[in-house]
Amino acid sequence: MKKQRVLTGITTTGTPHLGNYVGAIRPAIEASHDTNNLAFYFLADFHALIKCHEPDLVHQSTREIAATWLALGLNTDNVVFYRQSDVPEIPELCWLLTCMAAKGLMNRAHAYKAAVAANEEAGEDPDFGVTMGLFSYPVLMAADILMFNANKVPVGKDQIQHVEMARDIAARFNHHYGEHFALPEAQVDDHVAVLQGLDGRKMSKSYNNTIPLFLDEKPLKKHINKVKTNLLEPGEPKDADDSTVFQLWQAFATPEQTAYMREQFAAGIAWGEAKKQLFELINGQLSEARERYRELMANPSHVEAVLQAGAEKARSYSTPFLRDLRSAVGIRPIK
Amino acid sequence: MKKQRVLTGITTTGTPHLGNYVGAIRPAIEASHDTNNLAFYFLADFHALIKCHEPDLVHQSTREIAATWLALGLNTDNVVFYRQSDVPEIPELCWLLTCMAAKGLMNRAHAYKAAVAANEEAGEDPDFGVTMGLFSYPVLMAADILMFNANKVPVGKDQIQHVEMARDIAARFNHHYGEHFALPEAQVDDHVAVLQGLDGRKMSKSYNNTIPLFLDEKPLKKHINKVKTNLLEPGEPKDADDSTVFQLWQAFATPEQTAYMREQFAAGIAWGEAKKQLFELINGQLSEARERYRELMANPSHVEAVLQAGAEKARSYSTPFLRDLRSAVGIRPIK
Repeated sequence: MKKQRVLTGITTTGTPHLGNYVGAIRPAIEASHDTNNLAFYFLADFHALIKCHEPDLVHQSTREIAATWLALGLNTDNVVFYRQSDVPEIPELCWLLTCMAAKGLMNRAHAYKAAVAANEEAGEDPDFGVTMGLFSYPVLMAADILMFNANKVPVGKDQIQHVEMARDIAARFNHHYGEHFALPEAQVDDHVAVLQGLDGRKMSKSYNNTIPLFLDEKPLKKHINKVKTNLLEPGEPKDADDSTVFQLWQAFATPEQTAYMREQFAAGIAWGEAKKQLFELINGQLSEARERYRELMANPSHVEAVLQAGAEKARSYSTPFLRDLRSAVGIRPIK
Repeated sequence: MKKQRVLTGITTTGTPHLGNYVGAIRPAIEASHDTNNLAFYFLADFHALIKCHEPDLVHQSTREIAATWLALGLNTDNVVFYRQSDVPEIPELCWLLTCMAAKGLMNRAHAYKAAVAANEEAGEDPDFGVTMGLFSYPVLMAADILMFNANKVPVGKDQIQHVEMARDIAARFNHHYGEHFALPEAQVDDHVAVLQGLDGRKMSKSYNNTIPLFLDEKPLKKHINKVKTNLLEPGEPKDADDSTVFQLWQAFATPEQTAYMREQFAAGIAWGEAKKQLFELINGQLSEARERYRELMANPSHVEAVLQAGAEKARSYSTPFLRDLRSAVGIRPIK
């Protein structure tokens, strides 16, 4: 049976935090060992440029994310792990698809509509501050997906629409130029863990409430101590389901450990003690990877070499495929 | 003194006709011998994809246009003559600029606004049939220009706006990322000859009134005989300034020949005789080039080799420059 092709992009605009780890990185790394799939994981630095106009941040983030995934045991023998900007066929395909994509489709994109709505509420021009990058983003994402003929694209609910757009653009290309693309499907995992941040809201860079993934022990302990709790004293029973400390615990614990902590909450464990145990649980799971991460950050040329090898693997797919696609639209050597 | 950099694109969606020759090709080929400039001439096949979804037509047109320019004596030692799609740095730069271009700028593009107006008049959705290719076209054109840091872009009046947009995008990039781009200027030649077609309207593929440039003698004669005239008989004086035959004559004649034909018109030259002389004038000027054109069309691998050599020359500029631009936005090797 032909392998399913699965594709996941990681935008390079920040430092990975526990929320990224639990919601995206950990499951993706587990999946990287699944030999039933052919998986493509890429550092989406072209996408990063849409939102982030700070060059050093884009660069640093690329470095940190690559080192993070490798430190956590990404199986690069089994998956194709590359940096988007190392595959020149992607922006080229992006243009071919731009010529096929209906503008009306982009008008309906959630992210664009949200920007317009915010502008209208503020009494601004609807397109105030909107770049063509924000507006065209779904076309680039279609190129990312279609370049490798990915069938399955694991996404959060907010990204389903983008996969549908890629599907629409692919169908239109196939209609005009013959069947070249598999129609991709969004794969939504309803069980994706959404982690709470320090303040109890969703852990997110934009809320400034994150716990970075590879903090050293001391700052990790400090961060965990800052997790918001209520004023219940030691000995008073605590509601596990209403607690960020418990929610974080659960994200790292076995079912047995979860049951144990639930009992501790009911028995009135002190917040300080619960946080101490939480620190030990998380630290225990991350310390080895953190060690590898430090080594990788200190040895960037190794990381670069891994990415170059990944780019070579990626281009073994994209180069011949783009040649076919160019020929299909009429870009051919003269002979 | 540093050479001016001049850039001209030729969209590959048709067969060159006399109107193209007089208005664009002939002056560009003359300019190709001017060693005071560094000129870039390119076959804009990525642009062709916006309008033309017929692969064979795009391919055939590329072939014909390349052979035409070479047959007419383009000085490829002095100018950089390349096919846009042979320079992968262009679509990549296009994405970098996409992230800098304001959507509001594109909203104001004449071609887009014309499409919207036509849709509104027809009672359609404003963006009916509008592709992202049509909408984003000015960004690709900015990439074409800025990739080679062209200062001067000779354009028709309808294209001035696009050069201004390139200028705007360049300024924004420079503002965010440091001074990388020269700000291009449109160079409008008010004396560009606009040739009339068979029916007296502007000669244009869209009016289906063209005289293809390299017709064989017999069909060339036939086409010229079809040029619209009035019903004045031989011997009756004719108004040169109201005659397509005269206008065509003028586009190929020396001042002396023009004065001569004006006299002939006043003296009542028969339309048949005027057309005969017109045919001889045009045929005399084109027959040698037509011969070379036939040879080049029969020897496509030579044309391809010339384009490849041109691409190599073009990339000697674009490759190091794009490396700098990537680094400026934060896309850098990890080291």
